[in-house]
Amino acid sequence: MITGKNYIGSKLVGSHKPFKTFNPKSNSENPYEFYEASSEDINKAVAIAKEAFYTYKNISGAKKSEFLNAIADEILALGDELINTYTQESGLPEGRAIGERGRTMGQLRLFANLVAEGSWLEASIDTAQPKREPLPKADIRKMLIPMGPVVVFGASNFPLAFSTAGGDTASALASGCPVIVKSHPMHAGTGELVSSAIIKAAKKTGMPNGVFSNLNSSGIEVGVELTKHPDIKCVVFTGSFRGGKALFDIANSRPEPIPVFAEMGSINPVVLLPEALKSSSDSLAKNLAGSITLGAGQFCTNPGLVLSIKSKELTSFSKTLSELLQDMDASCMLHPNIKRTYEQNQNEITSQEHISVLTNSPGTTEINFVEPQLATVEGSVFLKNPTLHKEVFGPFSLIVQCIDEEELLKVVKCLEGQLTATLMADDNELSKYPELVNHLLEKVGRLIYNGMPTGVEVCPSMQHGGPYPSTTDSRFTSVGTGAIKRFVRPLSYQNWPHDLLPDELKNENPLEIYRIVNGEYSQGTI
Amino acid sequence: MITGKNYIGSKLVGSHKPFKTFNPKSNSENPYEFYEASSEDINKAVAIAKEAFYTYKNISGAKKSEFLNAIADEILALGDELINTYTQESGLPEGRAIGERGRTMGQLRLFANLVAEGSWLEASIDTAQPKREPLPKADIRKMLIPMGPVVVFGASNFPLAFSTAGGDTASALASGCPVIVKSHPMHAGTGELVSSAIIKAAKKTGMPNGVFSNLNSSGIEVGVELTKHPDIKCVVFTGSFRGGKALFDIANSRPEPIPVFAEMGSINPVVLLPEALKSSSDSLAKNLAGSITLGAGQFCTNPGLVLSIKSKELTSFSKTLSELLQDMDASCMLHPNIKRTYEQNQNEITSQEHISVLTNSPGTTEINFVEPQLATVEGSVFLKNPTLHKEVFGPFSLIVQCIDEEELLKVVKCLEGQLTATLMADDNELSKYPELVNHLLEKVGRLIYNGMPTGVEVCPSMQHGGPYPSTTDSRFTSVGTGAIKRFVRPLSYQNWPHDLLPDELKNENPLEIYRIVNGEYSQGTI
Repeated sequence: MITGKNYIGSKLVGSHKPFKTFNPKSNSENPYEFYEASSEDINKAVAIAKEAFYTYKNISGAKKSEFLNAIADEILALGDELINTYTQESGLPEGRAIGERGRTMGQLRLFANLVAEGSWLEASIDTAQPKREPLPKADIRKMLIPMGPVVVFGASNFPLAFSTAGGDTASALASGCPVIVKSHPMHAGTGELVSSAIIKAAKKTGMPNGVFSNLNSSGIEVGVELTKHPDIKCVVFTGSFRGGKALFDIANSRPEPIPVFAEMGSINPVVLLPEALKSSSDSLAKNLAGSITLGAGQFCTNPGLVLSIKSKELTSFSKTLSELLQDMDASCMLHPNIKRTYEQNQNEITSQEHISVLTNSPGTTEINFVEPQLATVEGSVFLKNPTLHKEVFGPFSLIVQCIDEEELLKVVKCLEGQLTATLMADDNELSKYPELVNHLLEKVGRLIYNGMPTGVEVCPSMQHGGPYPSTTDSRFTSVGTGAIKRFVRPLSYQNWPHDLLPDELKNENPLEIYRIVNGEYSQGTI
Repeated sequence: MITGKNYIGSKLVGSHKPFKTFNPKSNSENPYEFYEASSEDINKAVAIAKEAFYTYKNISGAKKSEFLNAIADEILALGDELINTYTQESGLPEGRAIGERGRTMGQLRLFANLVAEGSWLEASIDTAQPKREPLPKADIRKMLIPMGPVVVFGASNFPLAFSTAGGDTASALASGCPVIVKSHPMHAGTGELVSSAIIKAAKKTGMPNGVFSNLNSSGIEVGVELTKHPDIKCVVFTGSFRGGKALFDIANSRPEPIPVFAEMGSINPVVLLPEALKSSSDSLAKNLAGSITLGAGQFCTNPGLVLSIKSKELTSFSKTLSELLQDMDASCMLHPNIKRTYEQNQNEITSQEHISVLTNSPGTTEINFVEPQLATVEGSVFLKNPTLHKEVFGPFSLIVQCIDEEELLKVVKCLEGQLTATLMADDNELSKYPELVNHLLEKVGRLIYNGMPTGVEVCPSMQHGGPYPSTTDSRFTSVGTGAIKRFVRPLSYQNWPHDLLPDELKNENPLEIYRIVNGEYSQGTI
């Protein structure tokens, strides 16, 4: 049941600044009233998170694993109410809601397994050498420890997988950090339901009150206040460049600066190499049309830029792709504001000089729906006009036609940091472009060969991050097991009494984890 | 031979803004004239570093290892000229110079071994599942790659081990990043000699020109210009809070913010527990006196704060320690400016209300020499006066006398981030203070039991870093193999042609490194 209140730990609180969510499909407000967190609520949530931290951080990986698995169970137990609320608050179809719920539960279980196993803590042991000359060597043992209360900003475009109990919350809780979610105002109801599942799971598995709180907001104030709070030790965010950069700047200007991992989007260049265009033009166009329009183009890995070399095949490919996009149904965007921004950004690009719009859509009469759009420009124009490098969040893509390989390389070199880049190539074709690949990989977190950037696999080898401005720190990821590294720091124990060491660092290796012992990998005892 | 010029790659350049180094022992300028790098020199050094990066990053770990070992060899081959220049430019004794040279070479060889072995790259492979339902799973492989040209700021207090070819340079070069050193003006001659060794080693082992440059500076301008340069991707610094924080702010306000790891010092609290004071007062005082005065107190792990509970044993310990310090010889500081700052900072603290100075030194007539000083204050005063929490870089320490365990815990909770904390305890005594340890470890990067914080072991398990303001990012270290992680970021390859994958990610595992394959640690093939 949705109450519209904030969870301050297990307590439901709220009567301040009411607001509602919006159903873009029916173009009407949803019935529930939500209450924004007050300053008092924020301070209370942080205070209990801080208190909870001193017990939660010392809870075993096995117990944390139970907690994370219980969250997944409780989310499933929310049943249809969750799915219906999700679709009402996002305009996304039921199938997507069910799929995203599965992914969310999968992420929770992935981190549950990771912390139950325990090797992720990077335990490292250098034993003493009391007789070393000229000085004896002390016993030194190191492992990762959690940093403290974390603020997670829910994303607009993934009401489950990148929100309340999404990958950020799952990885932060797994690391041993209490979490305060700044709920996304567009899906506050979905957020409250998921929060109720987390609170239930925390109670069932005996976690301290304050390990999780969920705060509503209608504007930016709650997030800003949380980011400035001296007892918050890390902030993670998925959303716009403007939002992420603002939080980064706030966090860095605190008396005690704290890390912000903001994933701020990307135009995800797709490079079509000449042979691939010759042999697979139609299937490339079909796959790309699907990727551009997936989820109404509202994916951070949406392919917003297609790079290729001028040829009759490229002209024909462009025509095919534009026709495919033209023939596709209009799709509902997440919110009227997002639709408005999409149209503004798209118009900003298509109104630049020397841009040709290739799609010629009839227009849709459905409110909050949009049609995909494709435009094209010459490489020389793209090189000179940075406006064309901007992300258009929605089903829009720009084909850049380079005169030759040299210009293509120049275009690659002028790109800003991206989450992904994709290379479409024929058999053995890619090996002819070592310089292109060598430069392209400097711009991205993930390189894809003959596939689509949309669809981010959640697994240990996934990097979902990339050089600025796609994120604020390319050394971290928000998807995959590596996401946990954002919330931890190494601590060394020197000559520490053996009985008082954490289990991870004891000679007997009771958790049977992989460790680095005197520089060698080992799962054994000492 | 010292020319006073800058190394722009292998080229010696300089005629701009001459300056000299200073011998604090003889209180006179050293003979050589150095030339500050001009804007043109800076741009040239960065341009060739950027160019070198595109080849250097792809050089094998085995070849990089040769380069690092060759640097160590060439440093040793500099012979007495290096040792003499070091002592002339620092006032530190020859034994220290020889010891620090050994440590510097040891660090280079440590990283040489690390990259020759290769597992540090955190290779991770998730193989494809083409038949997975509802969607096939792509093959995804991840490893760490270097970020690009790095600026290393040489530290004043370690002319070798934390300077030109110190741990920062060794770890950055090991990671695959070209390095530009902003040489410390106090030991520009030592810096040039070491740079000549690096350049020789680079030539001998076939490294690209631009992989290393060394720029002189007499003020802050060169460092600021380097930090602002768009082609610099990371900055590392060891020095004052003021300097490190300024670079951090500059880097964050760039159009493209970049990571800065600044190690900015610490007061390294030493907690004396009651039983330890009863049983080992004299040896504690002796060891602490040695640690406080080591290197004239000019170590970032110098114990500047002693915390304990009031007792007659503490009074007696304080008396013994002050007498030991009083009896010690005065020692030469690195530079007249450092001596001046030491005296200012020490006076600032000792002139606060309710502070008692315990040492009563006769004063030294030797210019640039200082005597150690010990002061004491009640816990309640320390809690209220943040001035007393400041670092005094030099042989100074403050004993805080708490009325009871509760006040001791309060003092620990009010501390800022530190590199280390030390607990002095009798057998089984530490186990009686779980809350104290639980809070103390939140403040530090390294916890030491019955040992001294000075003497930072260079090994895989060392953490030399800590919460702000001891560093700008507690997730990284500047000492030990972990230091390499500051310069690298993960890159994922999705469905990449097997032949074009880096060796680290090939099925055959030709480098025989440890990898995570489908979530399991493995040194095997696929």
